[in-house]
Amino acid sequence: MFGERIYNFSAGPSMLPLPVLEQAQESLLNWNGSGMSVMEMSHRSSSFDSIFQDAQEKLRALLRVPDTHEILFLQGGATTQFAMVPLNLMGEAGRADYALTGNFSTKAYEEAQKYGACSVAASSAGENHTYIPAQEELQLDGGASYFHYCANNTIYGTEWQYVPETGAVPLVCDMSSNILSRPIDVGRYGLIYAGAQKNMAPAGLTVVILRRALAGHARKDTPVMLDYAVQIKGGSMYNTPPCWCIYILGLVLQWLTDLGGLEEMERRNGEKAALLYDYLDESRLFHGTARPEARSRMNVTFRTADKDLDAQFAKEAAAAGLSNLKGHRLVGGMRASIYNAMPMEGVLALRDFMARFEKEHI
Amino acid sequence: MFGERIYNFSAGPSMLPLPVLEQAQESLLNWNGSGMSVMEMSHRSSSFDSIFQDAQEKLRALLRVPDTHEILFLQGGATTQFAMVPLNLMGEAGRADYALTGNFSTKAYEEAQKYGACSVAASSAGENHTYIPAQEELQLDGGASYFHYCANNTIYGTEWQYVPETGAVPLVCDMSSNILSRPIDVGRYGLIYAGAQKNMAPAGLTVVILRRALAGHARKDTPVMLDYAVQIKGGSMYNTPPCWCIYILGLVLQWLTDLGGLEEMERRNGEKAALLYDYLDESRLFHGTARPEARSRMNVTFRTADKDLDAQFAKEAAAAGLSNLKGHRLVGGMRASIYNAMPMEGVLALRDFMARFEKEHI
Repeated sequence: MFGERIYNFSAGPSMLPLPVLEQAQESLLNWNGSGMSVMEMSHRSSSFDSIFQDAQEKLRALLRVPDTHEILFLQGGATTQFAMVPLNLMGEAGRADYALTGNFSTKAYEEAQKYGACSVAASSAGENHTYIPAQEELQLDGGASYFHYCANNTIYGTEWQYVPETGAVPLVCDMSSNILSRPIDVGRYGLIYAGAQKNMAPAGLTVVILRRALAGHARKDTPVMLDYAVQIKGGSMYNTPPCWCIYILGLVLQWLTDLGGLEEMERRNGEKAALLYDYLDESRLFHGTARPEARSRMNVTFRTADKDLDAQFAKEAAAAGLSNLKGHRLVGGMRASIYNAMPMEGVLALRDFMARFEKEHI
Repeated sequence: MFGERIYNFSAGPSMLPLPVLEQAQESLLNWNGSGMSVMEMSHRSSSFDSIFQDAQEKLRALLRVPDTHEILFLQGGATTQFAMVPLNLMGEAGRADYALTGNFSTKAYEEAQKYGACSVAASSAGENHTYIPAQEELQLDGGASYFHYCANNTIYGTEWQYVPETGAVPLVCDMSSNILSRPIDVGRYGLIYAGAQKNMAPAGLTVVILRRALAGHARKDTPVMLDYAVQIKGGSMYNTPPCWCIYILGLVLQWLTDLGGLEEMERRNGEKAALLYDYLDESRLFHGTARPEARSRMNVTFRTADKDLDAQFAKEAAAAGLSNLKGHRLVGGMRASIYNAMPMEGVLALRDFMARFEKEHI
C-alpha cells in the first residue's frame, strides 16, 4: 500500500496515475475558474472544447498519428467496435480475415460474421491461446476487406511482438489493453480501436484511430452512431460525448508527456514486466502460463501447481494491499495487470510478496 | 453565483447537485476505504457491484418501476436508442408510429426508417414545434409495433402534459430531458430511455427501462451491444459499463430520495418554472416562445423582439454568473434549462437579472 491506496492489479478498469486523480479531485467543483465541474459543462462550450482539443492534440502527438488518420472519441467499448468495424469496412468484397488469439478476438470474429464472410487467418485456440502465431503461419486472403487482430490478450497474458504484414489489406487492431504502452507506427494501420478503461481513462470511452479514406462506405442500415463517417463529420460530437472520460484521458496524456512520452513508458513497462518474468523463471513455486516469446508486458499470468494454493495466494495478497490478482475465470491461476499507471513500487511489492509466499509454501 | 460556482442554465450536460459533487470529490482517491477511486474499480468487484445494485434499487424505488420492467445502464446516448428501439421492437409488423414535436423526435423518426415503415402520427413542425398535439390529433395505427414520442423538447421548450393513449400499441418514450422531474406511471410504457446528462448523471450513460416481454425479438443483424435481450441477460455488463457515471447517478438518486422523492421534486420544479413563466407573462420586454399549455418545466424558452438585444442579454447574464442562456441555434432567443439540480436560488437570480435588464431596456 502507499498511503491509504492499494496496488490494484485489475485487468480493467484499472489504476489511474495518482497525479491525475489528484488534479481531478482538486478541480471537481470548479474547473479552471469556470465555476462548474467538467461533469456539468455543455459539450459545446468553449471550456469543454479546449479540454477536447487538448486531448486530441496530445494523443496525436504521443502516438505520432499521421494526418491521414482521424482520432475519434466514441462510446460502447471494444465490443461495439466488433460490429462497427465490419458495418463500415466489410464493403463490396464482403469478406475479412481474423486472427483468433484469445477471448476478445474470438468475440470480434463471431460478431463480424453477421456482416460478411469471415475467415480464420490463424488461431491459437488449440493450445489454449498460450502463444501468438508467427507471420508465416497467417493464412492471408489478399482480397479481404481487412485483417483483424487483438494486439494483447489480457486473459491469456500474450502479446503480439510484431505487426502483421498484410500487403494491401488494411490492418485493424484492437489495442484495448496495450495502447500507449510503447510507440507504434500508426501509419501501418487502417484502424486501431481501444476501450479506455485499461490504459487511458475511466470506462465509458472508446478511442478509434482510422485512416480517413476507410470511412464513408458503411452499410445502408448502419445505425447513425456506428457510422465512422458521421462521427468524423461531427468531430466525435454527433451527440454528447463522454466528457468526463475525455477530460481524464487528457490528464493521463499530460502525465505521459511529462514523464517522457511512449519511449520512456516502453522502458518502464519493459522493466516492470522483466522483474516479474525473471522471478517466475527462477521460482520453484510459481510458473508463467504464456510461452516466453509471446509474453505480455501488460498482463502477467502465472500459477502454482495447486488450485487451492492459487486461491490462497490471491486472498492473502489482497489482504496485503495487492488486489485483483485472481486470474480470469476462463483460465484460473493468477494475473497481474501492470498497465502504465502501475508504478514500479507496486510491482516490487508484488514480487517481494510472491517470494515470501514461496518460502512459506515450498 | 454561490461561492465560486455559477448558475449553469445549460440544456445538457448540465448542473449536478452540489452535495453530489462534494461527495464525489471527497471519495475520489479512495472510495469507502477500498483504497481506490471508483474510476479504477473492476466492474466485477464487490465494491462496484454494491454501487451498481444500489443505483438500480434507488432508481426502481424512486420511479416505482414494476417487476415487469428491467432497468438497463447503457452507453451511446439517446441517439443510439433511435436505432436500438426499431432494431429490437420493429418486429414482424414492421411499422411504427412517431410523433414529431421537435428536433430529437424527428431524428428518431429518420433513423427508424432504416428498419421499418414509420408513420408520422402527429407533427407540430408546421408551427415551429411551439405546441404539443392533443390526444385526438394523433393518427394512430392500431397495428404498429410501437408509438414513439419525446416527452420534453429541450430546443422548443415544450413538454407533453399527458401520456398518449395508444391501446395495445406499446408506448416508447424519450425522456432524456425530464426523467426524474416528477412521478410517472412506468407501467404504462413499453420502453423509456434517457441520456443521463440532463437530469441524472454526467454524459456517457443512457438509462433504459423496458417491459421485459418486449426484448428478445431483435433483427438478426443487430449488433450484440444493441440487443436489449443481451443487455438484460448480462445485467448491463455484457461489457464494461460506464462505471463512474453509474456511481454519480447513485449519488443523485440518494440526493433525490433524501429531499423527498419525485413528488417533492415535482413541487419544486413546478415552483421554479412558474416563477419564470409568471414573470414572462407580465414582462413588456421578454415573451415566452412555447404555447402556454405546452410549456416545459425543464426548458424555459423566451426572447425579446430584438435579436441583438437577445445576444446582449445572454452575454451580460453570463458575466453575472448566469451561464448558457443562449437559445439553440435552430431557434435563437434564450433558453433557461432548470433541471432538478438547478436550485430555486438560481431561478430567482435569473428572474431578478431579467427584471433589471428589462428596466434598462424598455
